[in-house]
Amino acid sequence: MIDRSDPEGAVAEAARRCSNWGRWGAGDVRGTMNFLTDDKRAAAAALIRRGRSFSLSQRFDMDGPQRGWRRRTNPVHTMLDTGTDAAAGVQGFPHGIGGADDVIAMPLQCSTQWDGLGHIFDHGVAWNGRPAGEVVTSLGDAVTGIETVADVIAGRAVLLDVGRAIGERGELPDGFAITEQHLRATIERQGASAAVGRGDIVLVRTGRLARARREGWGDYAGGDSPGLSFTTAGWLHRTEIAAIATDTWGFEVRPNEFDDAFQPLHQVAIPHIGLFLGEMWDLDELAADCAADGVWDCWLTAAPLPVTGAVGAPVNPVAVK
Amino acid sequence: MIDRSDPEGAVAEAARRCSNWGRWGAGDVRGTMNFLTDDKRAAAAALIRRGRSFSLSQRFDMDGPQRGWRRRTNPVHTMLDTGTDAAAGVQGFPHGIGGADDVIAMPLQCSTQWDGLGHIFDHGVAWNGRPAGEVVTSLGDAVTGIETVADVIAGRAVLLDVGRAIGERGELPDGFAITEQHLRATIERQGASAAVGRGDIVLVRTGRLARARREGWGDYAGGDSPGLSFTTAGWLHRTEIAAIATDTWGFEVRPNEFDDAFQPLHQVAIPHIGLFLGEMWDLDELAADCAADGVWDCWLTAAPLPVTGAVGAPVNPVAVK
Amino acid sequence: MIDRSDPEGAVAEAARRCSNWGRWGAGDVRGTMNFLTDDKRAAAAALIRRGRSFSLSQRFDMDGPQRGWRRRTNPVHTMLDTGTDAAAGVQGFPHGIGGADDVIAMPLQCSTQWDGLGHIFDHGVAWNGRPAGEVVTSLGDAVTGIETVADVIAGRAVLLDVGRAIGERGELPDGFAITEQHLRATIERQGASAAVGRGDIVLVRTGRLARARREGWGDYAGGDSPGLSFTTAGWLHRTEIAAIATDTWGFEVRPNEFDDAFQPLHQVAIPHIGLFLGEMWDLDELAADCAADGVWDCWLTAAPLPVTGAVGAPVNPVAVK
Amino acid sequence: MIDRSDPEGAVAEAARRCSNWGRWGAGDVRGTMNFLTDDKRAAAAALIRRGRSFSLSQRFDMDGPQRGWRRRTNPVHTMLDTGTDAAAGVQGFPHGIGGADDVIAMPLQCSTQWDGLGHIFDHGVAWNGRPAGEVVTSLGDAVTGIETVADVIAGRAVLLDVGRAIGERGELPDGFAITEQHLRATIERQGASAAVGRGDIVLVRTGRLARARREGWGDYAGGDSPGLSFTTAGWLHRTEIAAIATDTWGFEVRPNEFDDAFQPLHQVAIPHIGLFLGEMWDLDELAADCAADGVWDCWLTAAPLPVTGAVGAPVNPVAVK
Repeated sequence: MIDRSDPEGAVAEAARRCSNWGRWGAGDVRGTMNFLTDDKRAAAAALIRRGRSFSLSQRFDMDGPQRGWRRRTNPVHTMLDTGTDAAAGVQGFPHGIGGADDVIAMPLQCSTQWDGLGHIFDHGVAWNGRPAGEVVTSLGDAVTGIETVADVIAGRAVLLDVGRAIGERGELPDGFAITEQHLRATIERQGASAAVGRGDIVLVRTGRLARARREGWGDYAGGDSPGLSFTTAGWLHRTEIAAIATDTWGFEVRPNEFDDAFQPLHQVAIPHIGLFLGEMWDLDELAADCAADGVWDCWLTAAPLPVTGAVGAPVNPVAVK
Repeated sequence: MIDRSDPEGAVAEAARRCSNWGRWGAGDVRGTMNFLTDDKRAAAAALIRRGRSFSLSQRFDMDGPQRGWRRRTNPVHTMLDTGTDAAAGVQGFPHGIGGADDVIAMPLQCSTQWDGLGHIFDHGVAWNGRPAGEVVTSLGDAVTGIETVADVIAGRAVLLDVGRAIGERGELPDGFAITEQHLRATIERQGASAAVGRGDIVLVRTGRLARARREGWGDYAGGDSPGLSFTTAGWLHRTEIAAIATDTWGFEVRPNEFDDAFQPLHQVAIPHIGLFLGEMWDLDELAADCAADGVWDCWLTAAPLPVTGAVGAPVNPVAVK
Repeated sequence: MIDRSDPEGAVAEAARRCSNWGRWGAGDVRGTMNFLTDDKRAAAAALIRRGRSFSLSQRFDMDGPQRGWRRRTNPVHTMLDTGTDAAAGVQGFPHGIGGADDVIAMPLQCSTQWDGLGHIFDHGVAWNGRPAGEVVTSLGDAVTGIETVADVIAGRAVLLDVGRAIGERGELPDGFAITEQHLRATIERQGASAAVGRGDIVLVRTGRLARARREGWGDYAGGDSPGLSFTTAGWLHRTEIAAIATDTWGFEVRPNEFDDAFQPLHQVAIPHIGLFLGEMWDLDELAADCAADGVWDCWLTAAPLPVTGAVGAPVNPVAVK
Repeated sequence: MIDRSDPEGAVAEAARRCSNWGRWGAGDVRGTMNFLTDDKRAAAAALIRRGRSFSLSQRFDMDGPQRGWRRRTNPVHTMLDTGTDAAAGVQGFPHGIGGADDVIAMPLQCSTQWDGLGHIFDHGVAWNGRPAGEVVTSLGDAVTGIETVADVIAGRAVLLDVGRAIGERGELPDGFAITEQHLRATIERQGASAAVGRGDIVLVRTGRLARARREGWGDYAGGDSPGLSFTTAGWLHRTEIAAIATDTWGFEVRPNEFDDAFQPLHQVAIPHIGLFLGEMWDLDELAADCAADGVWDCWLTAAPLPVTGAVGAPVNPVAVK
């Protein structure tokens, strides 16, 4: 049972139970990505059967979910050159060539993204026990920047469609805390292809994005949401998964399960487990396909844009079945 | 032979010979990506053997190649929150949680990237014969934005290491025009795994990036370079490849092979062939591995960041052997 | 009387009546700023009496009015270096020096600003009869960029507090169209110091910003508002003022006074009169001072940030009485 | 004499001699701007005689001086809408209205600018003795942000054209340290209108910008330069000036006058004197006018863009004679 009045104690207790500090040496910068070995990757190739591919990314544009929370805006995409300019003949290029070019300004966590290991700290301490102030300065994350995992996030993914398994009409309501029991029930219901093990990338669908798509963004980014219960910390640690991603903005249930708290499961998962969290993924099309053919695992490449020193990064995850 | 005085005539002639307009219907927005079918993708999975993965992306940061050419800067990555702030206790979060967040501003073509089909026009006309001014306005590419291929760029890649096959110490000099003969010779030398066919993603290594890494960026972006000869237009069309990428800033040889010209092969390849061009890819580590094991093809996922309406997009391509 | 069904006809008629095309030669780029001569400026110096200065600018930050209308965001201000970094000793400078630096990304018209002469066109024609497509391309305004008036916007300003003169409790309601009669009544009520003449910068206070400050931004940017009536075009032309600014987002009344229209007074004022429009100015503190001492004119410097080729520009106008 | 081996000792000694901490109370956020009173401003109005105005700002565009030093880029100005779009009829507005809009991304100190009081720290301490880590976090300067002086920087300016008085052909060479003797000699040579006193804004022209204009930017930003000697700290303090600006990137002489140092005069001037420093101003046109009429003082409004929490800010200073 969660003591709603003591998030700090609960975090400390879970951190002690679930810590991976030192597991891959004092110099480790990849955390649970160490579970995703070449062997795992080679085995996962067998999951590519029909060759059908799915992008699990939302579109990056001004019509996104951000409403300014913590200075997060939607992407601002502007043109350096356009087809109208080319057609008007004002570009000055020879032999009839014309071109268009563009620019973007955006928070790295404005849409479909990975949280890097430098994104969250516990009492000023980052992944593997390093002082946060020495890891992430104004120059970015000098140690665990997202570029350190630029080449490895490819392997087996398992979709757990909790919304479909437990929810009504495929969706969980805001404030619904997904517990280990819910995860187990979903796996059982989905069958053998949904088994979760070491090195897997787990995709948890709550149906929250489907609702936003239907009803408008509203408070999708930063507001109430279904999500993982704080009590799943042990499962996240024990299963030795490489990463986990959801179709919600913040991975864990909101409001959080304490009286006065802010994302306590992050505080265990990132600095202590060393776990990579994906947020705002679009799992709906893949989920429909899995429900149709009864196969819940697939090949997944989810390579973050390797911005040097980034504590999070946009990604276009592509699943293939 | 190229008539150096008539790029406009040469472009027109090549465009006529190599046009894919209408090949996939008047409404097509994917061009040569149509060659990369589910069947091709399913077959390519067999190329994943050892499970070793390689990122083919350069790092995105201020130490990149851009020098301001056509208002292209290197990425500017700044922090919204830092570990030093968290450690100093000034963030105001409960129960000891601290966080870091970041923002980026960058041209979409500042580093490792795909050219989308709206990037280049021929006399005001875009891919499939559409008026450029109706396709790409200040709002972006309303028809062939990069998001239209967000889910499909995964399949077989073939590395043609022309630098290693033809060059000295693995590198071609600036101004070296790679012809169809060079491509054929490279394939022949590399052996059966280097055969190029329909739906493949071809990776051409010139060694230009290796040189920039050794000697400094200099004019890497926008300057002289080895690259594809204008005369390869027929090969690019005939082979029915899905895409081609190089380790240079501009894909084709620079200076161009005409007296007064600017990227004439782009003018054929993008609006007429409907071909996707990758630029500034980092092929060196993959090339070393291929040279070592003699296997030149692999699985590749090169999923562009799906910025709605983008005419180009950053990408972290991940190859797996 | 306005024929609500024919904005196009009304614009054409007003444009014919109020055109300043050619008045300052075919090459003119300064429009009504030509009225603000050195003599006018020298005479205005006498308005500095007490030496008290007022900033008429809103603050530029994330808590601004923008809600994404036409891709306009609030400014995103991030730090390149911070005091927490300096205090943590991670900056690497010698002899104890530490520093902070910052970056901004923002639309040039997100807050207190001048509309430049390249901001609005009438049927594809810009100020002084130039083709819009030759004036403002993706490279910016090559002719009438805001830098062309960087040095001249200093002189006499007259505050017309229509909100105080005509409104209830100092504020006009949304949809209130300020006519020439309202302007005359305000001037008469305010007395001799409110007389408007050639070369003046007129400041029209509606009270809309005071309401937003009290009730929250809501639709302040892009929504309904009090503002100038379309019928004031003649007054704007006849008075030979150099510029006019309001405390609203869009200068003219919203909804506009036609059944289907968008900012028709802009369409006359900018391309035909060549008039500079200021928007989102904060006139409240100055207005309170003017009401207290009964003096409604002052010295004003309103120098736009000289972004080369900008069609609008942020400004911190400073009035001195 | 400067002991070149001990910048830390020299800074400490100068700081002790020149400190204004507490002079305007513990809560002060305006430093030497307190010297620029309403009375001073009222008196300065008499300096407006001919009404001629001068912008002292460089243009803000991609052709600026920045080369990436400390992640400083030149401004990136892009269009949200263009005249070519309007002319092509693709904007969708009624009654023939068309528009252009723009966006900018830039470091706040990329061009003509004020250093705010939160820009520099001495051993982790900011202006008035506050801990730097509590003043400037990733959220910006919460205490002395540039907005705190948005309304006051208007008054008397005195141009000291040291380049013209002391240099050859109006320019000082790189590494030339301007001492108190040079300042006095310049004032004496320029005559009574060049007298410097309490509340004045001093403009020091070195000719460095004129050289950059002639020879290209080169290392103008961040490189060697003429500038104020470290030994002028006493003069800066004793004269009780409100602010000082130069036509160089960094105000003080470069290389600095110690063996291993970085901007030691900043370390005294900003956190201890509380002095506002202007950098990269364009003083050439004003200087030519002053040389012609022999009058070296003028009215100046130099109102920074009030970005909330900014540690520096772009400005378009406008002088009127």
